[in-house]
Amino acid sequence: MSDQKIPSRSEDFSEWYNTLVLRAELADYAPVRGCMIVRPYGWALWENIQKALDSRFKATGHVNAQFPLLIPQSFIEKEKSHVEGFSPELAVVTHGGGEKLEEPLVIRPTSETIIGHSYARWIQSYRDLPLLINQWNNVLRWELRTKLFLRTLEFFWQEGHTAHVTAEEAEAETLQMIDIYRDFAVNEAAVPVIVGRKSASERFAGADETYTIEAMMGDGKALQSGTSHNLGQNFAKAFEIRYLDRNGVLQHCWTTSWGVSTRFIGAIIMVHGDEQGLILPPRLAPWQVVIVPIYKNDEEKAAVLEAARRVRAELGAFRVMLDEREGSSPGFKFNDWEMRGVPLRIEIGPKDVAKGTVVLARRDQPGREGKSFVPQEGIAAAVDRMLAAIQKALYERALAFREARTADPADYAEFKSAVERGFAFSYWCGDAGCEKRIKEETKATLRCIPLEQPSGGGRCICCGAPAGEKAYFAKAY
Amino acid sequence: MSDQKIPSRSEDFSEWYNTLVLRAELADYAPVRGCMIVRPYGWALWENIQKALDSRFKATGHVNAQFPLLIPQSFIEKEKSHVEGFSPELAVVTHGGGEKLEEPLVIRPTSETIIGHSYARWIQSYRDLPLLINQWNNVLRWELRTKLFLRTLEFFWQEGHTAHVTAEEAEAETLQMIDIYRDFAVNEAAVPVIVGRKSASERFAGADETYTIEAMMGDGKALQSGTSHNLGQNFAKAFEIRYLDRNGVLQHCWTTSWGVSTRFIGAIIMVHGDEQGLILPPRLAPWQVVIVPIYKNDEEKAAVLEAARRVRAELGAFRVMLDEREGSSPGFKFNDWEMRGVPLRIEIGPKDVAKGTVVLARRDQPGREGKSFVPQEGIAAAVDRMLAAIQKALYERALAFREARTADPADYAEFKSAVERGFAFSYWCGDAGCEKRIKEETKATLRCIPLEQPSGGGRCICCGAPAGEKAYFAKAY
Repeated sequence: MSDQKIPSRSEDFSEWYNTLVLRAELADYAPVRGCMIVRPYGWALWENIQKALDSRFKATGHVNAQFPLLIPQSFIEKEKSHVEGFSPELAVVTHGGGEKLEEPLVIRPTSETIIGHSYARWIQSYRDLPLLINQWNNVLRWELRTKLFLRTLEFFWQEGHTAHVTAEEAEAETLQMIDIYRDFAVNEAAVPVIVGRKSASERFAGADETYTIEAMMGDGKALQSGTSHNLGQNFAKAFEIRYLDRNGVLQHCWTTSWGVSTRFIGAIIMVHGDEQGLILPPRLAPWQVVIVPIYKNDEEKAAVLEAARRVRAELGAFRVMLDEREGSSPGFKFNDWEMRGVPLRIEIGPKDVAKGTVVLARRDQPGREGKSFVPQEGIAAAVDRMLAAIQKALYERALAFREARTADPADYAEFKSAVERGFAFSYWCGDAGCEKRIKEETKATLRCIPLEQPSGGGRCICCGAPAGEKAYFAKAY
Repeated sequence: MSDQKIPSRSEDFSEWYNTLVLRAELADYAPVRGCMIVRPYGWALWENIQKALDSRFKATGHVNAQFPLLIPQSFIEKEKSHVEGFSPELAVVTHGGGEKLEEPLVIRPTSETIIGHSYARWIQSYRDLPLLINQWNNVLRWELRTKLFLRTLEFFWQEGHTAHVTAEEAEAETLQMIDIYRDFAVNEAAVPVIVGRKSASERFAGADETYTIEAMMGDGKALQSGTSHNLGQNFAKAFEIRYLDRNGVLQHCWTTSWGVSTRFIGAIIMVHGDEQGLILPPRLAPWQVVIVPIYKNDEEKAAVLEAARRVRAELGAFRVMLDEREGSSPGFKFNDWEMRGVPLRIEIGPKDVAKGTVVLARRDQPGREGKSFVPQEGIAAAVDRMLAAIQKALYERALAFREARTADPADYAEFKSAVERGFAFSYWCGDAGCEKRIKEETKATLRCIPLEQPSGGGRCICCGAPAGEKAYFAKAY
């Protein structure tokens, strides 16, 4: 915390982001390059994300477990495209207990292989299916360019892994989970997302199909915010995950995997934040309300604190911070909590005590228009309404921003300028060559082919050939 | 799950334990030697343990965070006794992203060093103190002899790390946390524990004082079930964790650390289990109640399932499993859930439907005496009372067992036989030589010097010298 100004969001979005993550004490750099420490304020946000997702997983029949951190190197090599995708990113343990290991062990970059190995042992018959397991854990990928939350060597996530009797069931599960991510993003994080499938070149290494939710950040770039993979029988064949069907015939399972990571915290920061700092969506904010008492002398202080504590007690259903810090001015506290993104501030001064009112100040509307005077009596209902209004306003603002920054370019020249400021939604012929040319020439990648498509068809924005589907293209994190 | 009998608890406690962990699907062996997979039933138990502890941590002002998995090897070497204690147990990452690392990284065996490094950067003044952070994570120690839950290379735990302005505050924190562990063990896990301090030779590597909760397992051996360390200024000096006091003078902090791990699951199994399998304490059991419907034909089935589902709906406040599995007999289901330790079974058959009753069967009292007939109306209150009674009975039984197996031997010969069957509570002169001789001659270790001591003094059970304090000695896991 400090009085120093944060860098300008409009002038240097990247510096604004980095500074804010550190200043708001969401995370810090670890002594090991590219690793991060998630500080208490950041972890409290993650715990709220975890609760919101975990309850959705459990409501759809999934259970949690915990698989090991260390994987024999040979496991990674069993699925052809998986090893190609992950080999360059592995951290390798070569020594344990003072001795060189016979077989090197890798720190899991993801757990399809070790879970595949277990499922092969646990699944005997169709009665054991579907097997619907999730785990909350840490994984590690040796990235070269890192950025707090968005791309770090070690990161925190959940990875769901399921096994099914039919291809149709696996596909339904894959789609169910991407829809749960959409629902979470929209209704908990107030982050609008586009749901779609990845092109072959952007798929998870080892998947037949990858679905994604893509969000637009405050600088117009895309962030892949959650993915769900239909793994077909690729891992089932590599790890011999088989079941006896009702006719006593041995069959390979169909498997899926899906994940959301601490990267999502980056999305929340970059979608909602403004020049003053973070704006956290009320449903996920560690503190939904901060109460700042205002007084000039001991007599005022006693009366104001008494009222502030009474108000806090009234707000027992919310996550409330009463900032009683000595030696900091109310103005400092306002700025500090604005920077840290608390969605609603309650100010209580001597006049408020006299009148039995408080000032409510919305974080999403800094300045006069976001302030209102409400009676202390019935404060809980007023706060509840206000938090819901902020949650809704954040979503609508983000959606309006995305729509304003999404173009339907008439030609490739327009396309090129569109991806400089946001998303381009264009027909694509399906050819990987066009996708590659676009990437090389514009630095935009194919983010997803949305599940909802306009009727009819058109012509590929790159080569002009007939094209049946439109896709979103954007520069991405 | 299977119809096979489990090994006899009284004849081969160790095999009984191993088989039960696998059969009840609490955990499984990982492909890497000494690592474990915690399966959904075991992880659900751990999640309940987490909730019970985490709410106590938060109620006492602690917050959660997440520190990195990887630690520069040089960090471990900064605190003299810490490096001696942990060096032999380290797993070392030497390669990342396909290249040899300049400095090897170790997988955290515990996080005092990396947290000390962070605290040194975060703490500036007395205003930043106390700093009270906990994390739930995985750690890794390269153990030679392993056993599921009790000692594995990777295990799961929480580690709290706090920094304070005075030695007294740090000591008070250390004692507060061991008391929270005691409260958790007694009131959530129904596991009686002795609270005491460790002798110098059994202390945490780097601590000035280690407090422990020690529990007696069903074979009379001790299990260290949670520890809290007063680290003095050892880590503060090694990592330069300093603060400016109110007079502007730079001072070293006083720090603590404390942890409970998945090992506690081993304690729950070994304290409460019986010849039929697990008995899980109601407050932590993944399923507190299992409902087994009993029917012979489709007509009975329809009526019974309708009643069973209605009863389940009445029990919304509890964790209830309605076992509707087809193709398994009620008898199989009874055995299966008994083996898995569900504390209360509800049986519903056609006669119960007719009479509007159910059968309640207590897991801790197998056979007729544990069965009662209760009306379906008001079932929730009956279940609530019954679960509380089971929770209490489990604690009392474990306490009575410990008391029966705890001796106050008159001489060293009696001491030797006492530690063959349980705890010996004896005067000890405080000399490490006596402690060592006892360990060599009896395999019993000094488990703890309890905080509550009898008045007066006595003579050392080993050498006969005057002794001021009594200690518990036992063979231990």
